[in-house]
This record gives sequence, C-alpha cells and structure tokens, in this order.
Amino acid sequence: MSKDTKTNLSRRNFLKATSITTATAGLALSGFASAKTAPTCNTMPEQWDETYDVVVVGSGFAGLSAAIEAKNAKASVVILEKMPVPGGNSTINGGGMAVVGSDIQKANGVTDSVDAMLGDMYKAGLGLNYPKQARMVAERSNEAFEWCRDYLGVKWKDKLAQFGGHSIPRTHTTYNQSGSGIVQPMLAKCKELDIPLHKKVYVKRLISDNEGRVVGLEVVTKFKPGKENATATHFIKAKKGVVMASGGFAADVLYRSTQDPRLTEELATTNHSGATSECLKEMVRVGANPVQLSWIQLGPWASPDEKGFGLAPIFAAYSAFTHGVMINPETSERFVNELADRKVRADAIIKTGNVAVAICDSVGVTASMHVMPKLLEREVVHTFDTLDALAAHYKMSAKTLQAQIERYNSYVAQKNDPEFGKPFSMKQKAILKAPFYAVRLWPKAHHTMGGVEINTQAQVINVATRETIPGLYACGESTGGTHGACRLGTVAIPDCIVFGRIAGQMAANA
Amino acid sequence: MSKDTKTNLSRRNFLKATSITTATAGLALSGFASAKTAPTCNTMPEQWDETYDVVVVGSGFAGLSAAIEAKNAKASVVILEKMPVPGGNSTINGGGMAVVGSDIQKANGVTDSVDAMLGDMYKAGLGLNYPKQARMVAERSNEAFEWCRDYLGVKWKDKLAQFGGHSIPRTHTTYNQSGSGIVQPMLAKCKELDIPLHKKVYVKRLISDNEGRVVGLEVVTKFKPGKENATATHFIKAKKGVVMASGGFAADVLYRSTQDPRLTEELATTNHSGATSECLKEMVRVGANPVQLSWIQLGPWASPDEKGFGLAPIFAAYSAFTHGVMINPETSERFVNELADRKVRADAIIKTGNVAVAICDSVGVTASMHVMPKLLEREVVHTFDTLDALAAHYKMSAKTLQAQIERYNSYVAQKNDPEFGKPFSMKQKAILKAPFYAVRLWPKAHHTMGGVEINTQAQVINVATRETIPGLYACGESTGGTHGACRLGTVAIPDCIVFGRIAGQMAANA
Repeated sequence: MSKDTKTNLSRRNFLKATSITTATAGLALSGFASAKTAPTCNTMPEQWDETYDVVVVGSGFAGLSAAIEAKNAKASVVILEKMPVPGGNSTINGGGMAVVGSDIQKANGVTDSVDAMLGDMYKAGLGLNYPKQARMVAERSNEAFEWCRDYLGVKWKDKLAQFGGHSIPRTHTTYNQSGSGIVQPMLAKCKELDIPLHKKVYVKRLISDNEGRVVGLEVVTKFKPGKENATATHFIKAKKGVVMASGGFAADVLYRSTQDPRLTEELATTNHSGATSECLKEMVRVGANPVQLSWIQLGPWASPDEKGFGLAPIFAAYSAFTHGVMINPETSERFVNELADRKVRADAIIKTGNVAVAICDSVGVTASMHVMPKLLEREVVHTFDTLDALAAHYKMSAKTLQAQIERYNSYVAQKNDPEFGKPFSMKQKAILKAPFYAVRLWPKAHHTMGGVEINTQAQVINVATRETIPGLYACGESTGGTHGACRLGTVAIPDCIVFGRIAGQMAANA
Repeated sequence: MSKDTKTNLSRRNFLKATSITTATAGLALSGFASAKTAPTCNTMPEQWDETYDVVVVGSGFAGLSAAIEAKNAKASVVILEKMPVPGGNSTINGGGMAVVGSDIQKANGVTDSVDAMLGDMYKAGLGLNYPKQARMVAERSNEAFEWCRDYLGVKWKDKLAQFGGHSIPRTHTTYNQSGSGIVQPMLAKCKELDIPLHKKVYVKRLISDNEGRVVGLEVVTKFKPGKENATATHFIKAKKGVVMASGGFAADVLYRSTQDPRLTEELATTNHSGATSECLKEMVRVGANPVQLSWIQLGPWASPDEKGFGLAPIFAAYSAFTHGVMINPETSERFVNELADRKVRADAIIKTGNVAVAICDSVGVTASMHVMPKLLEREVVHTFDTLDALAAHYKMSAKTLQAQIERYNSYVAQKNDPEFGKPFSMKQKAILKAPFYAVRLWPKAHHTMGGVEINTQAQVINVATRETIPGLYACGESTGGTHGACRLGTVAIPDCIVFGRIAGQMAANA
C-alpha cells in the first residue's frame, strides 16, 4: 500500500483559516431555491394538484414510521422523497438501535434502565439535551424496537453490542448489520398499506394560510440536483398536517460551514448527497426555531480509504473499538478510550494530526466477519500474520506496539484500564491470535444534532409566539434537542422511530 | 456574614433536568410580538412617518460607532433605542479593550501581533471563529482605539492588563474602568453631530420590499416592557440601510434556554434587561442566517452577592485573577488557571459545585482600588487581616490555604505554574501583605457568541441565496462568527467598534 499514514486532512489543514463568506460564489447553492426575492408572502396556489390528509417529507426511519402510523390512524398519506431511491441515510448506516429493557437484554443478563441511558446521553450531550425529549426516546425505545420486530418483521441479532459512550450493552443490531434491515420492511409495509411514495420530489416551499397554519407544499417533480428552480411546480395540499422527516445537513458543505467553519469541502461526510439544509431553512422561514445547529458530529470510525459511510464503521465499532485498540502511528500507542463518545474520539484523532489505525485480532473480528470480504477486497481493511508486519506496514515501531498490546492485554485481564478508562463489559479478550486486522480512520461529518425545536408531541414550535405551528410536525435528524452536544451511537434509530411514530399519529389525529 | 459558600445554583441544580417546551406557557414572551399569524407578507405602510438615509438600531458601542460614521459620510441618521437610557450592556462593563500594536503597548515594552491575538481568539473559540471576520477585528483594533482616543476624546489608563485567555497584555482600560468611559464621549459626539437618538422605541418588524431589500421598520414608540403589541405603531423609512446593532440575548431566559437548556431562570445574567432576542428573530424572518447560537458565554468573574454585572468583575479580573488566586472552599485549594479563557474558568467553577473564592493581597488590589469602597460597602468584597481569618470566614482549612498560598508564591517567584499553567507576564508578586481581599464568584450568562452571519463589510447574508440582503447591516453582539465557541475578555469592544464603523460607512455609501 503506497498511501501514507498522514492524510491530506492533517490537523494543520483541518484548522486552517478558511474564508466563509467569500469562498461561496463559485459553489452550488446546496439545493436551495436561489430566488432573490424576500421571503415574503405565502401565496396560495390557484388550485392544488393533489390532496392528502398527511404529507410526509422524507423516507428514512422517521418518515416511514410517520407514514405507517398516520395511515393506520385512518389518514390518507403520501411520502415525498427528493432522491431517486428511498431511505436516505437510514439505509447506509450500521443498523444499530439503542434499546432499554428489551427481551434480548434480559436474555443476555443485562440490567439497564431509562435513567442509565439518559445519564449516558447527557454525559455525551454535555447537558444540552432537552430533558423531556431525550426521556421520551429512552422510555419508548423498547416499544419502538418491538414494533419493528413484531409489526414490521425486522430481524435482529441475538447478541448485544456496546457502542462508544454507552455504559451498558444496549445496542441491538439488524440481522444484516445495516439500516436497510429496517427500511426494507418499512417500505414493504407502506406498500401493503397502499401509501404512495413519490420519488424525485423536491420541496420548494411550505405554504401557510393567513392564520399561520401549514396547509401544503409547493414541490418540484422529476427533481434533479441543480434543477431546484425548474419552473414546473406542483402543489400538494395537506388537510391535517405536514410531517418534516427531512433529515440533517451533514452533506451540505456550504451551510454546515457557516455553523462550524472547520467543516469545509476538505472534510468528507458519511452522508448521502441529499443530506442538505433546504427543508430546515424552509421550516425556519415559516416560523420554526432553529436550535443547536453548530453541534455537528464527526464519526470517529470512518475510513479515508473508502467513500461515504462505507463498511469500515462496522469493523471499527463492533470489532476494533470493542475488542481491539486504536493506535496513533506516530507514537505506536493508544491515545483515547476506544469506547468514549464520538466527540471525544473524533477530537482525539484530529488532535494527533495522524490518521489513526484501529486493530483487532482474529477473535475480535468475529462480529464484523460478514463484511470482511468486501473490506479486504476494497483494501480498506488489511490483515497481517504478525504484529511486526502490521507495524511495518503502518510505519510504527514494532517494539512499542508490541509493548502497547501487552499492556492493553493486562488491562483486559484485570478488567480495568487505568490509562483511558475503557469499560470491559463485553467479555473482551486479550489481543493474541493472528491474523490481525487493521483499518485507517479519520473522522467524517456524520450527524447534525441541531434542527428545529419541537415539543414531545413532535409539534414544531414557533420561535416568536412559543406556541406550536399548526399543521407542522417534525421528527428525526431534522429536529434539535434530543442529543445535545453529541449524539451517542445507535440512538438515532430510536429517536427517528419514536418521534416518527408520534408525528404520524399526531398529524393524522389533528 | 450568614451566607453559605454553597449557592442555590449547585452543580446538581445547574444540570437539573428542566422542561423547555412546556414550562413556557406562564412566562412572558421575551419581548417578541405574539401575533398568531404566520410570518408572511411584508406589508408596506400606506405612508412613512419619518425618513432617514440610515436607521441604526441600538445605542451601544456598535450602534453609536455606526451612527457617527454614517453621519460623517454625509448620511442623515437616526438611532433607535428600546430602553429608557442609552448604552445597553456597553455602559455596564469594565471598559477593557483588547488592542494590538498601540502606543501604550509600545510604551510598556510589550511586543504583540495580529497573529498572536488571532491565535488566542482561535484557541478559546475552538476554531469555530470566522477567520476573515476575526482578523478584521484584530487588524483594525488599534485604528478603533486611536479613533476613540483622538476623535472621540476617550481617556485611557497608561497601564495594560492581561485578561484570561490572552497570551500577551493587550487590554487597554478606560480611565473609569467602565464602558461608560467610551459610551459617554460617543453620545457627546452624536449630539455634536446632530444625530437624533430616540429612546423607548421598540422594533416590531423589519420591512422588505418585493425585491427583498430592507427599506424600513415598523416600531412601537413610548415602549414599555410587556407592551410590545401596543397597536400604535410608527413607520420609519431607511433610504440607504438599516444597521442592526441590537445586541445579544443573554437576558432572554426563554430563548437562550432553547439553545442551551441549562440556562434557565435559575442562572443569573450580567446583562441589562433589554438584552433579548426579538431583533435577531426579526433578521432571521427576513432571511438572515442565524449561526452558532448555542454558544452562550458564562462570565467567571461574576458574584452571586450582587445583581447583574456589578463591580466584582473589576476586582476579579484586574486584581484577584491576575495578582491572586481562586480557591475552591471545599478543598481550600486552587482548581484552574485563573487566567484561562472564560469558558474554561466558568466550567471549572461549575464543576466544583461550590461558589469559588478569589483572593488577593493589598498590593494586588491596587488596580481595582477605585471600586473598592463600593464593593466593601455592599459587602461583595471582604477584607481580612490574616489568611487564617479569611479561611475561617469562608469555612476553609486555614492550614491547607496557607500551604496553597505558599506554593503559589513559589510559582510566582519561579515564573512558572506547573500545576495549572498560569502565565506570569504581569509582574505578579507573592501574596503576602495584609489586608487580604476576597470575593465569592459564580458564573452568570454574559455574552451570546452566535448571531446573524455577516461578511467582512457588515452586510447580512441571506441564508437561502448566500447573497447579501440589500439594505441590511449588522454589527456587534447581534452577529456571529468573530468569537467562535468563546469570546475572550475585552474583545467585544474592538468587535463592536470595528464592525460598527464599517456598518455605518457601508450603509451611508450604499
């Protein structure tokens, strides 16, 4: 492998002064209508092209959950999806769902509680979490999990995982270790329920009436990126409500860098290209309160050796971080608790200035073995017969690495890591058995914690009046508050499903 | 003194789960019009009541600077101030101004540079600062300083101070150690230039024309808090531009707690009561991009024993932090570099869970001696003939405190603090000479780093088009980006004056 262990995104470059307001001229407008007119009148259409009780924007976990619940509450429903394929980021993640009190936890002898999960969420969230919203997610996580399993037919693994920042193993994983294991059954249920899903439909405008009620949308059909301003628009009326399950903006370089100037186009993202900010801006335009937007999460398990989310996160989270170590190749030593929260780990990698190398042995690799053929074929993960060979490949000191692994193994044996405080509740074993597996890691923009303010009924709050905006609901990554400063891994799925279901029920019963 | 060293705001209470979305019903609407209608049409008035080239909203450092510059550029100008007295927070701070390259720095033999100041700002700002905007403030700080001195007649002390987070002494202080030392000469200049200043004028609405240009404002005159919806409104036309120097929102409990749920009404503020969010929301309504709003600074030098900003910050910043120590009464020891940035120090105090006690001796007190009579009379600062008496008063261990002071004195002697890394470039001396002065400290909400996005010409950026919003300028605390995650002490004044001047010039020449 000829690639150097230094990435182009060295710390120096990452922190490099970057022009925000003048560097934008030549770039695309991140999918937002670039009309020069003021955000003025919500002109009503002369006539509506289509009418439903509930219009759901977005077809990820949150949107599909909302649509199914709204339909089951006897509403007529349509799902609008901007992209040519449904599912958004929900199909390209690892399918991990943090759940408190499941049958699987009981079968595995794990004692957990809502307060324990909230404690973990607060610690990572630096206390910025909205308490009632966070509690709703934890309290209803098992109900959402059982709904997926019993009503949708989602298949789950029997074993639990312990993700970074969680003090207890509570991550349940789909049989195929992908969010598609949930999205596909959701799509099948939508089909069974006769819920239309219109693809390539771009939301141009939310339409409010004179009393401030959101009553419908102006959309562009047959949408292609860069064609947001196609003049042919279409008007869809929502008799009961619009549910914005429109996701976050981690792929929207221009917008995200106004909130965090470090996140220029030099920093990759795990997100699909449709994760942009136009729906957030549109909600704000009709009165929503944008909260905590500058907290943008970087995923510490992302590899610069593949595009997007990729498969490396599965190996890193389930195998290397849990059962192995993460090494700074410059020192050939560990530098962080591999099971700390995402912010702590991503910040730690960036601080070293070096692409990290995460390692596990042939026992630790078990939980990610099914993705290993692809990771090896793509040369994202490499295998080595000895630690010396591994050290040579990544230009580490073999001697220091060997000593580091021995020291780490002694911590595993005593179930105590006096250096970084890594928890050993996952029956970790010493790193001993060849072959050894390794991956290079550098953070990518992954999740936007901020979004519009909602209440625990998924109603969007008006920034001026502090009342709800009639007819407007939001759920999932388009909302802020649940996660505070840092979302713990695998808490996105319960957030999306719990609040997606609430939003669908609320809109249908409005 | 009967007060306990524990405050009601113990860490437990501070971090206590607080309802955001449901606790609001009974509270005032933080000064914003509570109309239930949608933020829809920018209805033009049938006729304007007054017309000026430039309308400046706010009469602090930024607004007054803008008004003076606009007038000197031959524009007709009016200043609108919501409160019954002008000056806002600018009159109730310590009058410290960070300046690079001044005559006073040269006279004191201090070598400084724009890059050194930027380095300090970036370190505290966690790299979230907008590079060009931050640089503008540092580069033009001396020009602003000289404008104050030579054009306005502001009187400055000859000595420099070194505020927390600054690696070099660059804080210049007004002769009366108050921002009023700048505001009063600015007000006198406005009078000399015949610039009208209308007090008790509340901005209800920014008015845009059909092309999205901000052309004026709808205001309430004879404003009284709680009477924002008085029907009698007044329309003011701005032929060239509106300059929003409307300040931050640290006193707006309801709004600030949507961005940072910890900042409930239990947490005091240093700000005047008019520091609310209605102008920010109004700029967002006409298309501005709100950035970094969840970074809200707590002042570590605030005392729970007086209301608002008070006088304790002068004693703490100029005397106790620089020439003394800050002690956790529970351990009777130091716990942080007293000259770290504000976020580090405020977080450190909160983490102890105890109201801190800052101490200096009769030599260290010199720089704040002029405010000492009031501080002693109000029982905010206490004096003690011995460290033993001081320890007894604050329920510390006299022995541990004595040992701590001796250890600290040895660090002063060797000009190196191996425990917390406090810099000793201010000719600090050992803490030896009675009487000893002490103050209790607990953080208060002080500065909102976030605000609307501007460019380096103080033009407000449209969130949708990324172009400037014609006719709309913003400066000072109403904008985001200069400070990133944490504003360094005494950088607000150069920020306000540099960008206030630019905004006034730009608006006048539009």
